[in-house]
Amino acid sequence: MGRNFQDANDFLPPAFERMVTANAWSTSSPLDASRLKLKLTTSPKDVPPPDSKDLLAHKVCTDHMIVGRWTSEKGWADPEMVPFAPISFLPTASVLHYSTSCFEGMKVYRGFDGKLRLFRPEYNCARMLASARRICLPEFDPKELLKLIKKLCEVDGPKWLPKSRHGESLYIRPTLIGSDSSLGFQVPHEALLVILVSYWPAPTGPSKGLRLLCSGEEAVRSWPGGTGSAKVSGNYAPSLLVHGEAKRHGCDQVLWLFGPEGYITEAGSANFFVVWRCPQGKLQLVTAPLSDHLILAGVTRQSVLDLARERLGESIVAISGCEPLEVIERRFTVSDLVEATQRGSLVGAFVVGTACFMQPVVHVQNDNTEIAIAQDKVPHVEILRKWMKDIMFGGEDNIWADEVAEE
Amino acid sequence: MGRNFQDANDFLPPAFERMVTANAWSTSSPLDASRLKLKLTTSPKDVPPPDSKDLLAHKVCTDHMIVGRWTSEKGWADPEMVPFAPISFLPTASVLHYSTSCFEGMKVYRGFDGKLRLFRPEYNCARMLASARRICLPEFDPKELLKLIKKLCEVDGPKWLPKSRHGESLYIRPTLIGSDSSLGFQVPHEALLVILVSYWPAPTGPSKGLRLLCSGEEAVRSWPGGTGSAKVSGNYAPSLLVHGEAKRHGCDQVLWLFGPEGYITEAGSANFFVVWRCPQGKLQLVTAPLSDHLILAGVTRQSVLDLARERLGESIVAISGCEPLEVIERRFTVSDLVEATQRGSLVGAFVVGTACFMQPVVHVQNDNTEIAIAQDKVPHVEILRKWMKDIMFGGEDNIWADEVAEE
Repeated sequence: MGRNFQDANDFLPPAFERMVTANAWSTSSPLDASRLKLKLTTSPKDVPPPDSKDLLAHKVCTDHMIVGRWTSEKGWADPEMVPFAPISFLPTASVLHYSTSCFEGMKVYRGFDGKLRLFRPEYNCARMLASARRICLPEFDPKELLKLIKKLCEVDGPKWLPKSRHGESLYIRPTLIGSDSSLGFQVPHEALLVILVSYWPAPTGPSKGLRLLCSGEEAVRSWPGGTGSAKVSGNYAPSLLVHGEAKRHGCDQVLWLFGPEGYITEAGSANFFVVWRCPQGKLQLVTAPLSDHLILAGVTRQSVLDLARERLGESIVAISGCEPLEVIERRFTVSDLVEATQRGSLVGAFVVGTACFMQPVVHVQNDNTEIAIAQDKVPHVEILRKWMKDIMFGGEDNIWADEVAEE
Repeated sequence: MGRNFQDANDFLPPAFERMVTANAWSTSSPLDASRLKLKLTTSPKDVPPPDSKDLLAHKVCTDHMIVGRWTSEKGWADPEMVPFAPISFLPTASVLHYSTSCFEGMKVYRGFDGKLRLFRPEYNCARMLASARRICLPEFDPKELLKLIKKLCEVDGPKWLPKSRHGESLYIRPTLIGSDSSLGFQVPHEALLVILVSYWPAPTGPSKGLRLLCSGEEAVRSWPGGTGSAKVSGNYAPSLLVHGEAKRHGCDQVLWLFGPEGYITEAGSANFFVVWRCPQGKLQLVTAPLSDHLILAGVTRQSVLDLARERLGESIVAISGCEPLEVIERRFTVSDLVEATQRGSLVGAFVVGTACFMQPVVHVQNDNTEIAIAQDKVPHVEILRKWMKDIMFGGEDNIWADEVAEE
């Protein structure tokens, strides 16, 4: 691949790299986490009980947020950690009319050893810069963004994710917003970085597995030359209508297909994997490729691929002791799924994402075809899930885990 | 066509109509303009001079705006006319992360007879509802929206577009915003309607004509099954990068092509028309069709088509006294443009939109091909422009002009 996903250019199609370079503002004053000003709350909130209505509605954030203001004229002002509170815009603000905003989804994990950790956060920070560039929001050093994120976790972590809650996590949402108050459609001259930490409800019991409804040609999530591989806000609203359709069909999410061939891209806002036995008899882990730029390059997706290649690949069977797995990123279609089912060689399917982690898929519905997927035929997915959790929660010392200092 | 563009369903692909019906909230309390509460400003602003920096930057709005709040629980609250001022959101607001917003662009015209008029405003209001439905924002009666818009023009029109400024206009921007403060990705349970009136700078002298750079396959504005025919915010930010590319090539706007064939769709955020003589000798006015749902169904586009068909069409030459014009909505490509140029039969090209009105195109650049377009070969475009202005500014009594009561 030649990509380590620590540089924003690893996420953008080459044609955009060139445009971005030509388009970038020269920022005299860069984003600088060392200049963070703390303006801490004098009226801290109560941590809500686990069954709180607001919590279940994803409406509870921690006591603080980080705010960074940028203008084309002066660059980045000193970032501030302030009490979580409303922000105000003129009603002409760019983001409200032209969707000049992008974001990231990350988690901070409370380890069983009592430590707080982020999971490959430099990946998210580099991707955030790539998303910002795709829609002409300002440049920043992803390393500085990461320092700010860690600082917020340091301050709010001990109270909102105490050591007693080991094995749980908080959700981190960095957002970059075009705040320019000009109705003229143009590259924003003002922007606002906001980093939030949200109290994410724990999943209620072990999932029975997701049911997915395939999208039809009347609704397409992304396309070549679009923004499907960037985490920009504009990707989201258009999918709400089809998501409602899925619910009405008794499904949990949409399985987004692309083109007349029905290429499988994403499921809801997560990446989709299948495990099947190919006609030649090999066990394969398959997911859609990044090269089409139709899907988000998920950090969980990449980590599952990396772990599977490193530890379950064909040359290293001895280590894990189970049947080798061929790991493949390639286009595949819903017809391939049907065919594998008919051959009896579909072994499992699952979706992955930071919010949902790794969830089994038990059912895929496409027009009148229903595909039932059993999940217990091979141990590989369960092993991958365990390795991931071990890294997140300190059960395994790994370079992907980035410890947050506390106190 | 069977469409009169006074119903939101005239703008949506049929597959979405079905989903919308199933998805709509039942709103016990509908949007009701008769319940408008006036909370007028006590500190009115000065109208800026025509060369004001803020004015040229599209940053000046009139004294008031209309705000309407909606919740899934209670429906629409009484709309309010309040002083133009910042609005505040929790930083978790849906619109900031998931681009749940849509808008309209309209103008109010000060006639040479001293009267204020809107131009086919029911068209914009129906389209606004269609855009809202496409991204699961709440239902409203377009007629009530129109009443609110007219009320705002009544109050701010006399001061901000006085009778002395006949022949000029103000820009109206109704916006509907998902304001739900849940980070969970879902249909917003809260929304905010905001209607602004902006002081739009007058064009500086007669335009020499636009230069357009054709987009390449690396950047595609819209796609079948996407949102290209809805006026949703998510359509806009992704085009900023390519717009910068156009500027660097000495062009004013992007000519958005679609597919390997290079179908011409929109120019910037405007609709594109060409006038050419077909090989059989007929003079034709050609623009991209709505049926692909790749382009916005512009009100200026539709009006040019309607006027051309009614008054310049083949059966009614006698009325206008000039050569008949065949009016065609169909797919056409940039190669067709090149070919017409080579045949010497390209007669003119122009873009239309509410903001830009009707502007000639003098140059189209595609890779290394440059197409120069002369504009003075036939009088038809100039005649159409005159008819449009006559309707807008009261020179012709027409059902498209909707008078705004004053005092």
